Amino acid sequence: MSLIIQQTFTVLEKGTVTAPQGYKAAGLHAGIKKKRKDIALIVSEVPAAAAGVFTTNLVRAACVTQNEAQLKEVPYLQAIVINSGNANACTGAQGEADALTMRNHTAQELGLPEHGVAIASTGVIGVQMPMVPLLAGISQATEELSVAGGEDFAQAILTTDTGSKEIAVQLTVDGRLVTLGGAAKGSGMIHPNMATMLAFVTTDAAVEPAALQTLLRRTTDQTYNRITVDGDTSTNDMVLVMANGLAGNAPLGEQHPQWEEFAAAFRYVSEKLAKDIARDGEGATKLIEVIVQGAASERIASQIAKSIIGSSLVKTAVYGADANWGRILAAAGYSGAPFDPARVDIWLGSIQVAEGGMGLLFDEEAAKEYLLGDPVTITVDLHQGDHAATAYGCDLTYDYVRINASYRT
Amino acid sequence: MSLIIQQTFTVLEKGTVTAPQGYKAAGLHAGIKKKRKDIALIVSEVPAAAAGVFTTNLVRAACVTQNEAQLKEVPYLQAIVINSGNANACTGAQGEADALTMRNHTAQELGLPEHGVAIASTGVIGVQMPMVPLLAGISQATEELSVAGGEDFAQAILTTDTGSKEIAVQLTVDGRLVTLGGAAKGSGMIHPNMATMLAFVTTDAAVEPAALQTLLRRTTDQTYNRITVDGDTSTNDMVLVMANGLAGNAPLGEQHPQWEEFAAAFRYVSEKLAKDIARDGEGATKLIEVIVQGAASERIASQIAKSIIGSSLVKTAVYGADANWGRILAAAGYSGAPFDPARVDIWLGSIQVAEGGMGLLFDEEAAKEYLLGDPVTITVDLHQGDHAATAYGCDLTYDYVRINASYRT
Repeated sequence: MSLIIQQTFTVLEKGTVTAPQGYKAAGLHAGIKKKRKDIALIVSEVPAAAAGVFTTNLVRAACVTQNEAQLKEVPYLQAIVINSGNANACTGAQGEADALTMRNHTAQELGLPEHGVAIASTGVIGVQMPMVPLLAGISQATEELSVAGGEDFAQAILTTDTGSKEIAVQLTVDGRLVTLGGAAKGSGMIHPNMATMLAFVTTDAAVEPAALQTLLRRTTDQTYNRITVDGDTSTNDMVLVMANGLAGNAPLGEQHPQWEEFAAAFRYVSEKLAKDIARDGEGATKLIEVIVQGAASERIASQIAKSIIGSSLVKTAVYGADANWGRILAAAGYSGAPFDPARVDIWLGSIQVAEGGMGLLFDEEAAKEYLLGDPVTITVDLHQGDHAATAYGCDLTYDYVRINASYRT
Repeated sequence: MSLIIQQTFTVLEKGTVTAPQGYKAAGLHAGIKKKRKDIALIVSEVPAAAAGVFTTNLVRAACVTQNEAQLKEVPYLQAIVINSGNANACTGAQGEADALTMRNHTAQELGLPEHGVAIASTGVIGVQMPMVPLLAGISQATEELSVAGGEDFAQAILTTDTGSKEIAVQLTVDGRLVTLGGAAKGSGMIHPNMATMLAFVTTDAAVEPAALQTLLRRTTDQTYNRITVDGDTSTNDMVLVMANGLAGNAPLGEQHPQWEEFAAAFRYVSEKLAKDIARDGEGATKLIEVIVQGAASERIASQIAKSIIGSSLVKTAVYGADANWGRILAAAGYSGAPFDPARVDIWLGSIQVAEGGMGLLFDEEAAKEYLLGDPVTITVDLHQGDHAATAYGCDLTYDYVRINASYRT
């Protein structure tokens, strides 16, 4: 709380994963899905320091266990290949074998060592991967790699998402221009602790692998793990980062004088992707941000913020533009975190609706007007300390039900 | 698991809280709600041994804290008064005072000591109780008390419920006819750990107060705390039991040879009310039962069953009659309970859809047909022990969103 970081980075227009130096990408339709793009590939010119975080679900797809083991052994990657349309989860020994084949085929086509390739899959669970279109699609993708391919990449990783989620930012490190790019997919089954979401961040910065892993873990807890759509956590989630060093800076680590600047840019990229995922939750019409402040610890603030953003009753009330602050306080109450309900103030945007745990007379029409907008910010002040945390989510709508009542068929 | 209890009780037709000897009840419209009944009163001829369990939400309505403190001191009650339409929660010192007034006014009208009366409120949070109609309604209810009033009582405690939830059963203890009656309300904001649900159980059995409390706690964990509608836990939930002893049996406790018979009847009443609440979740079209068996412990079975029944993705899939077993396994995976995903079998009714953590080829049409029915039973066998647990819930539908998007307005 004592360190103030100035934003020392610039957000690029239409930036994506190929904005940093030395990355090419592709995205195409191979036939795993009926019509839309379903194979995405990103390749770095040179081996990149790499880090990953993975789903906490006990039921984990082969891609998750495979990448995790591989990165633990060699924290470098040169390519990531992703398919959408089939999660290759709950597919047994055949699924494990298919995941290995997916990786090894990609490595062979690119002329890379096998451990230089990470894989990710997203889509329906429990159906064997259609290997013929998958492998053909990967081969084709290796031929279509280009710097312009970032947008196709971002589209090919989507499932029920309504649009692609991308960003790139630039800053100067050691006098060298450093770029970070990112792409993500989200939508259903999103919850704190890495639900069906994939995010891929690229940078041309030189970063020490251990520092990159620490930074990714910390940032994930503050961004991706603070979003929720429906409380479900998936079998396939992961965030992968590649840092190929082509910017020519001195390797970044906690000892580097500009480490916190780089970390802030990295966090911005992650936060943008996390918010995009939250706003595009299945059926959502808007982004909801819950800020809990005045907490005795960040853990308490985070636990309460996540509980509020996860409440179906809060989410439907926002959808209905109903200033039902009682549900907000009730959701704080069952979060499991300790606080004094009689000291809680609540705001919807800048309209205070509760003070000291009780309702205020407020302008219902103005509150309704505010809740009809996007984004909606709910602020809860506990008045018990000076820690704060923000969680991101979306409203719960008819369309969430429609989309999920017939996803598989 | 070793003790087999025969069902030694009979379910009464149209039984309710006034089925046991010595209880009268009333339910009427006092003006807290616009049209429907909103005051319910049940009175025993003589003081009854009493027990209660209460919401785990940190934000607790005055009725909850007041009853809990009171029962801890004197575990006997002679009357319970309930209002629907206003929860008197998050209403501060005024709310506390109003709750006391509600109790004391009822005691005075009935000529009872104040600690002989328990109160409950359910409805909107954060709005001060309209005391004029409340107190007038209570006075009127004391005049309308009758044995025939059980059905009115059961109606007057409802909020968004679509119908009343009642039951009565009879058994013989010490050669005397013992009757148990129950009424409950549920609907939105229902979750394991006592969400906005109220349940009231009456009996003419003589039961030791400490044994009654122990039985209620144990039974609640196996019934009311195994239901979920939307994962929200309310500020006002409680289950209260009165046992007035007019049946003339020797006081029941763990040493009584027929204790387990009585406990089984008590559990049946609780389970029936819990299932009724689950089936009538806001917008629900059906009851879902999740049975987890083959678990290493009951705690593990219960944790996994609750995680599955709480999954929005499972609930929407059932609504859409989509045999999406992958979501079932994924929800088991994020339950936090340890098990081996590769050993899990899953059935929808009698149709096995997964074996050893992988999908089977099954008759999709037959599965769809089964999921269109009511209730839907999902069975998960972990093959890691011989413990089992059942959780109850409902499907997630468009109507859940409709009801909750505009509850307050």
